[in-house]
Amino acid sequence: MRIGIDMGGMSIKFGLVNKKNQIVDKIVIPTRLDIPAEKMIDYMTESVLELLEKHGLNIRDCAGIGIGSPGTVDDRRGEILYSNNFGWENVAIVTQMQERLPVPIKIANDADAAALGEVFAGVCKGVKSAVMLTLGTGVGGGVILDGKIFHGPLNGGVELGHMVIKAGGEQCTCGRKGCLEAYASATALLRMAKQAAGENPSSIMNRMCENRLENMDGVIPFEAAAIGDATAKKVIEEYEDNLATGIVNVVNIFRPEVVILGGGVAAQKENLTIPLEEKVKRFCFGGGHGEIARIVTSELGNDAGIIGAAALTIV
Amino acid sequence: MRIGIDMGGMSIKFGLVNKKNQIVDKIVIPTRLDIPAEKMIDYMTESVLELLEKHGLNIRDCAGIGIGSPGTVDDRRGEILYSNNFGWENVAIVTQMQERLPVPIKIANDADAAALGEVFAGVCKGVKSAVMLTLGTGVGGGVILDGKIFHGPLNGGVELGHMVIKAGGEQCTCGRKGCLEAYASATALLRMAKQAAGENPSSIMNRMCENRLENMDGVIPFEAAAIGDATAKKVIEEYEDNLATGIVNVVNIFRPEVVILGGGVAAQKENLTIPLEEKVKRFCFGGGHGEIARIVTSELGNDAGIIGAAALTIV
Repeated sequence: MRIGIDMGGMSIKFGLVNKKNQIVDKIVIPTRLDIPAEKMIDYMTESVLELLEKHGLNIRDCAGIGIGSPGTVDDRRGEILYSNNFGWENVAIVTQMQERLPVPIKIANDADAAALGEVFAGVCKGVKSAVMLTLGTGVGGGVILDGKIFHGPLNGGVELGHMVIKAGGEQCTCGRKGCLEAYASATALLRMAKQAAGENPSSIMNRMCENRLENMDGVIPFEAAAIGDATAKKVIEEYEDNLATGIVNVVNIFRPEVVILGGGVAAQKENLTIPLEEKVKRFCFGGGHGEIARIVTSELGNDAGIIGAAALTIV
Repeated sequence: MRIGIDMGGMSIKFGLVNKKNQIVDKIVIPTRLDIPAEKMIDYMTESVLELLEKHGLNIRDCAGIGIGSPGTVDDRRGEILYSNNFGWENVAIVTQMQERLPVPIKIANDADAAALGEVFAGVCKGVKSAVMLTLGTGVGGGVILDGKIFHGPLNGGVELGHMVIKAGGEQCTCGRKGCLEAYASATALLRMAKQAAGENPSSIMNRMCENRLENMDGVIPFEAAAIGDATAKKVIEEYEDNLATGIVNVVNIFRPEVVILGGGVAAQKENLTIPLEEKVKRFCFGGGHGEIARIVTSELGNDAGIIGAAALTIV
């Protein structure tokens, strides 16, 4: 048995994972941003022990613990260098947990852990190389090469969401303008849909969100486009063009076997991947002379982070 | 002794390289685009034997041969899948050469070979990971990880020059709009300088190219900027901003130890790297929380391709 921990800004999830990479049981605790990191890590340590006890296990029955953390992680030293969500800086989480949990403990960025999860036990089981883009509040990027997370030689993280695709464009949270995140996140889709609906009162998107743009969600533009709303179609077309630009860049840079889309927007499945594959094939460098990645959507959804984290000590 | 071959659209260079990765001697033959690939490869084979003979060596004294080729290369099968410069498709160059040259022969993309050369024997000697951007007619990209060329799991090439940094922007030769190549190549610099000089008759750049914009070269805008020409300064600033956008993307994606700039524009050395380092530090994701690559210029210049190619059989 192994433990996978998925740290989020709202909650921290702990999964007991078996040899088949299945989650046997899960517990969730709220993320406390009002207490010091050390105290929060104590709570995390207790949760690990609690989850094991619940199944009649103790720490010696645990083959390893993996942590997926948002932000910039030093996987070699087991530290969270900086997490905007947690407000943490240079936190030696692995060392601290290891005091009471004397088993192998590894840490990775959460987007990397999710990508590893999909390759280990999800949509890309058995695939050696894949790039995962998580289309949520931001755009997370995880790169798997030779079955392992590609961290990059220096610390800082492989941040595919912060690849500029339109210099001088939309402001990104990272300080730059025109990042993929500012064009292909669920947040970006909402921004585009709200603006288009606001400018086109006859768009059915307005009725679908009860004429309150604050009710707009990431599904409405897809549903409105599906029933022929011209404004929604334009929004989706533009969103997919932006995402395709990012994916073509990723393919031109990494030449992975598969590009996995995760996060809320990926719930659109073929609705999203079919037009994307067509756009990506058209624009990849070398065209028919190279090999072009398949585009698929996540299979494990929110569990990818836990399963991937639990796999960290065995890859 | 090893042989490194640098294939270019105008000429093919052969270097005899010693154990210290120094070029002992070089011969150059013209690239013939009017004959079949097989015939050209025969000429190349003969040139290898000629270079060896010239030094009293025969093929058994040669520890290996490496080829740097433009275009899309299948390094595993030793084939040139597609070279625009040569008009070649699916040419099994390694198999053909090996018939008469029974030694280990490897092939790589020319930008990759140049990057390997700089890591092996040039400005990055001893560095494990580096990304090289060659700023010439186009923008070539070579990625070295763990001392080896990163080819990407699928064929098609790691084409950093064809990463879109400004979607919908300048037309690139690859079919997309807004590629790094369309903004950071020497060609792009010339385009920008010509346009700016044309629009600003008082710019000293006009006098420096004798009022004939077709005389513009990649040095004039830098020289004009250095003596205070406002138009040239603006051109250089914009060029460096574009290049910095590409470099920040590369750092956010690969986290290499060093970014090496090669090609004609890199002759500017610190003139280029000092402002770039400042821009790149400001915009890298994670800022001070991550580690940021140094930026240096190529040391081997045009020899990087030969030295890197010769290193292919020993990495």
